[in-house]
Amino acid sequence: MLRSFVRAAAIGFVGTSLLAGALPATAQDVGKIVAYRQGIMKALGWHIGPIAGMAKGEVAFDQAKLQHHANALAALSQILQEGFPEGSAGDSKAKPDIWTNWADFETKVDGLETATAALAAGAGGVTDAGGIGALLGPVGGACKACHDSYRAQ
Amino acid sequence: MLRSFVRAAAIGFVGTSLLAGALPATAQDVGKIVAYRQGIMKALGWHIGPIAGMAKGEVAFDQAKLQHHANALAALSQILQEGFPEGSAGDSKAKPDIWTNWADFETKVDGLETATAALAAGAGGVTDAGGIGALLGPVGGACKACHDSYRAQ
Repeated sequence: MLRSFVRAAAIGFVGTSLLAGALPATAQDVGKIVAYRQGIMKALGWHIGPIAGMAKGEVAFDQAKLQHHANALAALSQILQEGFPEGSAGDSKAKPDIWTNWADFETKVDGLETATAALAAGAGGVTDAGGIGALLGPVGGACKACHDSYRAQ
Repeated sequence: MLRSFVRAAAIGFVGTSLLAGALPATAQDVGKIVAYRQGIMKALGWHIGPIAGMAKGEVAFDQAKLQHHANALAALSQILQEGFPEGSAGDSKAKPDIWTNWADFETKVDGLETATAALAAGAGGVTDAGGIGALLGPVGGACKACHDSYRAQ
C-alpha cells in the first residue's frame, strides 16, 4: 500500500540530506539508510519477542502488552520499505535482488503490513496465549518469506 | 502515558531474553536494549528530516508525506521509553541521570509523545510549508529538552 508514495518519500529523504536531491545516493547517505532500516528491523524483533514468548508460554499472557507490541509491529511495518531506496544495498545483508525484483519485494513487504495489521486488529479478541498463534504465524511467515529471498545468510 | 506498563513491557522483554527474567540485565541484553533505542532514535531523525525540510522550504510541501512522517513520529515516540529500562546505560550517550531522575525523564518523553501526537493530529489541517512550524516547534523542543538533560555531549 502507498508504494509509490513511500518510494518518493525515501527519495525525498535522500534529497534532503544531499540538498540538491541528486541520485545515486552517496556513501554517507547509504550508511544512514542502512542504519534506518536496520533500526526498524531491530525494533520489529524487539516487539515480536514478547508476543512469541507469550505464545510459547515463556512470558505471562498480558492483553495490554500484546496489544502494545502488536500496534508497534503494525506501525513499524508501515515505515520499513522506505528504508530500501534503490542504490542502498551498502554494507548490509540486503541482496541486490531486492531492486531487480522490486515488485515481488513490494508484495512481500505488503504481506508483512497485512499480517501485522491483522495482528493489531485481532489482538483485542485474544484472551489467552493459545489464541496468539493464529495471528502471529502469518507475521513470522511474512518475515521468513522476505528474508529467504532478499537477505543474505 | 502508560508509563508503568511500558516499564513492565521493557522488563518483560529483558526477561524473555534471559528466560529466567532476572535483573540486572546482562551485557548482551544491554547491547540489545541500546541497539533498540538507538534504532528508534535514528528512525525519529529519519522522519523529522523531511518535515523540517518542508518547513524550511528545502523540500517541496507535500500533504501526504507530511502526514506519513508525522504518523511515524507519533508511533515511534510511543515505543521509545521502553528502550530505557534501569541498568541499560551501557555503551551509549544515555546519562545515568535518567534513572536517578526517572519521573522527570518520563515527563520529558511524555512531552515528545504529546508533541508528535499533536503534529500527527494537526498535519491534515496544514496546507502549506508556513503552517508546519507551529506543530514542529514543540517536537524539536521536546527532543532538545530531553537531550540537554539526559544525553551526553
